[in-house]
Amino acid sequence: MLQPIQLSRQILRYEKGYIHQSEDTVVTEYPITIMLNNQEFATMVCTPEHMEDLVIGFLASEGIISSYEDIKQIRIIETTGKAYVDTFKVNKFNQMFHSKRYVTSCCGKSRQSFYFYSDAKTANTFTSAKVKISFQDCFRLMELMQKSATTFQNTGGVHNTALCDRNGIVISRMDIGRHNALDKIYGYCLKHTIPMNDKIIVFSGRISSEVLLKVSKIGCEIVLSKSAPTVLALQLAEELGITTVGFIRNHSLNVYTHTERIHS
Amino acid sequence: MLQPIQLSRQILRYEKGYIHQSEDTVVTEYPITIMLNNQEFATMVCTPEHMEDLVIGFLASEGIISSYEDIKQIRIIETTGKAYVDTFKVNKFNQMFHSKRYVTSCCGKSRQSFYFYSDAKTANTFTSAKVKISFQDCFRLMELMQKSATTFQNTGGVHNTALCDRNGIVISRMDIGRHNALDKIYGYCLKHTIPMNDKIIVFSGRISSEVLLKVSKIGCEIVLSKSAPTVLALQLAEELGITTVGFIRNHSLNVYTHTERIHS
Repeated sequence: MLQPIQLSRQILRYEKGYIHQSEDTVVTEYPITIMLNNQEFATMVCTPEHMEDLVIGFLASEGIISSYEDIKQIRIIETTGKAYVDTFKVNKFNQMFHSKRYVTSCCGKSRQSFYFYSDAKTANTFTSAKVKISFQDCFRLMELMQKSATTFQNTGGVHNTALCDRNGIVISRMDIGRHNALDKIYGYCLKHTIPMNDKIIVFSGRISSEVLLKVSKIGCEIVLSKSAPTVLALQLAEELGITTVGFIRNHSLNVYTHTERIHS
Repeated sequence: MLQPIQLSRQILRYEKGYIHQSEDTVVTEYPITIMLNNQEFATMVCTPEHMEDLVIGFLASEGIISSYEDIKQIRIIETTGKAYVDTFKVNKFNQMFHSKRYVTSCCGKSRQSFYFYSDAKTANTFTSAKVKISFQDCFRLMELMQKSATTFQNTGGVHNTALCDRNGIVISRMDIGRHNALDKIYGYCLKHTIPMNDKIIVFSGRISSEVLLKVSKIGCEIVLSKSAPTVLALQLAEELGITTVGFIRNHSLNVYTHTERIHS
């Protein structure tokens, strides 16, 4: 039984002094629990589509698996909200330290911005500028991403992410959880061996440190957002060599880090 | 040493064809790890102000403590990002099942929408309509909340929550994490024994199931939002007796559940 991603609801609508019964389309939320080799690993709430990709992307992002080949079997049981994942091997260290605070004992500069073990182990650093785009590309890709976001237009309740190259969208995903949309893209690309290091992430939400780390793990050098970044995200972006572009709105934008990849 | 809540950053700004160096105010993000009776309990990322309230509200919301009096000592060490909390007693069951999936073995209707143990144990149900407000109150309180949100106006990077009565704002808080702003309010009210069951929550973000559950735990019957709810949040609101009002924008709004508390 497939779960719906949106439902119609009866509401009381007030509109400029006029009160009436109406209907509204509301986005669903679906809790899914990952059972990793028969042990409860994590529960997340998501938009119930592309859930296998979500689980694969999440496990890779957490450093539990390093490729799709590490998975022996994956089954999503929609009626119970469980994802059963069996792996050939699992990174025991990352599993043990899942969600555990990363505290470096040295006072060196390296990786000081990380606060989870798995992030410090799985984040990628980019030292060259393989991908370059123009200011106009930023506006064009943002517009394409927004046009593809039909569920958001219906419900206002989800975040959207698109994996793009300079020509346009390669794959786009939405989810009520900001990170989930990124994990769905990551999982899909791992499963279908789609190269990610020549692509660009276009995102509807704020660039927090978690979002920036996901972009790094996915392997993209550039992230474009309609919204604001955080200081910690920008510190990580500086360190990891990622170009962050924010507030892409009304013919203006801000390039926050590694400006060398954006040209006129 | 107090952590800053926002910082100035040098950026490259593109504005209608004109490219120039500029400055932007960016919100900070600060990881804090709760050490509960000398054991690592959780790490969260927050806006570094009112952190003691945040920790108190979070522990109450998770069902670990049931009142401020359960806390023997709380110390926030800003340099290391640690919150040391010692309690007189702790709910062992909720601690053990922290973040664990709640799966009911019966097929009854009761509390079927819950997916974490602690939520099913700590959520409040409202059976009367103690608090009633008008459509105009909804618009007025939303306007007051938005006017109080100065950091959002500067950075676009945080969520805002206000605890209101019909006369206006009692306390307002902001945070980069949506739930944190609610926990900061909860912690403050617990510490200062401010009654919450006659108040209204006004929120800048989407009403997800997690947000709705926080509102229930805080003890408010009405939640007002500028944004969209989710289906699961509305199911919970129906069950728990909470009035949800969404999309309060441009002289219009939607009342999704328990309309009896909103009058002309």
